[in-house]
Amino acid sequence: MNVLIVYSHPSPTSLNAALKDTAVEVLEKQGHKVKVSDLYKMNFKPIADLDDFTAIKNSDNFSYISEQYHASQNRTFSKDILDEQEKLTWADLVIFQFPMWWTEAPAILKGWFDRVFAYGFAYGPGAYDQGNLRGKKAMLSFTTGGKDLRNFGKNHLKGELSERLFNIQHEKLYFVGMDVIEPFVFTAGIDEQGKKELFKQFEERLIHIESAPVIPFRPVSDYENGKLKETTYS
Amino acid sequence: MNVLIVYSHPSPTSLNAALKDTAVEVLEKQGHKVKVSDLYKMNFKPIADLDDFTAIKNSDNFSYISEQYHASQNRTFSKDILDEQEKLTWADLVIFQFPMWWTEAPAILKGWFDRVFAYGFAYGPGAYDQGNLRGKKAMLSFTTGGKDLRNFGKNHLKGELSERLFNIQHEKLYFVGMDVIEPFVFTAGIDEQGKKELFKQFEERLIHIESAPVIPFRPVSDYENGKLKETTYS
Repeated sequence: MNVLIVYSHPSPTSLNAALKDTAVEVLEKQGHKVKVSDLYKMNFKPIADLDDFTAIKNSDNFSYISEQYHASQNRTFSKDILDEQEKLTWADLVIFQFPMWWTEAPAILKGWFDRVFAYGFAYGPGAYDQGNLRGKKAMLSFTTGGKDLRNFGKNHLKGELSERLFNIQHEKLYFVGMDVIEPFVFTAGIDEQGKKELFKQFEERLIHIESAPVIPFRPVSDYENGKLKETTYS
Repeated sequence: MNVLIVYSHPSPTSLNAALKDTAVEVLEKQGHKVKVSDLYKMNFKPIADLDDFTAIKNSDNFSYISEQYHASQNRTFSKDILDEQEKLTWADLVIFQFPMWWTEAPAILKGWFDRVFAYGFAYGPGAYDQGNLRGKKAMLSFTTGGKDLRNFGKNHLKGELSERLFNIQHEKLYFVGMDVIEPFVFTAGIDEQGKKELFKQFEERLIHIESAPVIPFRPVSDYENGKLKETTYS
């Protein structure tokens, strides 16, 4: 497989850096081809604005999404966006490695989605199972504070982890058509022995990445006017 | 009241710009004092890194959150962060005006949370109802695509809107202790008559902002080891 790792952490001595390095090493050993987008090192621009386009359709009263569509039709994105889109086109699997900050990706990675997952490129006319990146896989690999995930769950302080990740996994990755592999969560507050064990689990996950379980999100045809059809309830 | 509007949209002719202008006008007419952080105009830096501190505790193997704590103790944040924190300290109410992009805030606003809501300033040692910004109120005001909110709800394509907003409303605003007013959602795909009606509703909301309903999030004391105590179920 061709694997793109989109990596977002400011420190080269961080746990996230070590996880990224582990992924590169293990995946290459398995015979996969690996590219890394190191967003901090690239000083990736997170701010979506008119500088993202080399030709503007309507600069007086612009809509960012209309400009994205125009740029998708004419390949008039800025070079940094085109580079990322080319890597996405190349990739069979995209792994996102990041620290969970404020229950979301760091801003630099949010900006990658805002700018790179453009209308007309990643989705449009279709979305979800009709998105333009269908056939590709994606996986979140992130660190959280704490020793464990005790704050997540039904009737827990932060609610279900799947709900906390829905905005990324369903509304970004699946939205553009990707199959989303179950996330790998590294609880960074664990002791050294626990960390060793998690690194081992991460390696195992990567060795068997091609058969890793995918989250069974529903096709859009299961919904009518936004609502699940009664015949598809389960 | 002292009201801070944190506004994030690249276009001065956008619906979001008009909503921000409306808020300033209506709130000032009501006798409130208003400040606006226009993140795009300020070219606000969204990327959290070591440049956010004028003194570094540990540059070789740094933890961003530890550096935040160090900077909170010593007031060694970069000037742009200190300015925003001063506005927050001044404010009784913070309104966030933004377009919903990928079911989240634009990256520039995510970066505002990553950098300004610092450990030791906005929270720490306590969080949620023990957060350092308790006593203040916050409200999301955002635009979405589409004519209506048909995709949101139980058994709908995007799930419950309250769950989609939980990562901001519960895990950011309430996390630092703020009382969160019900969000104002502007469905940008509506016709002109519908838009007029929504602007009217927005003005009404602002006129009566001091009595607007607050989301009844639970105090942390209702939880034990992350889980809701059985005696507090309802």
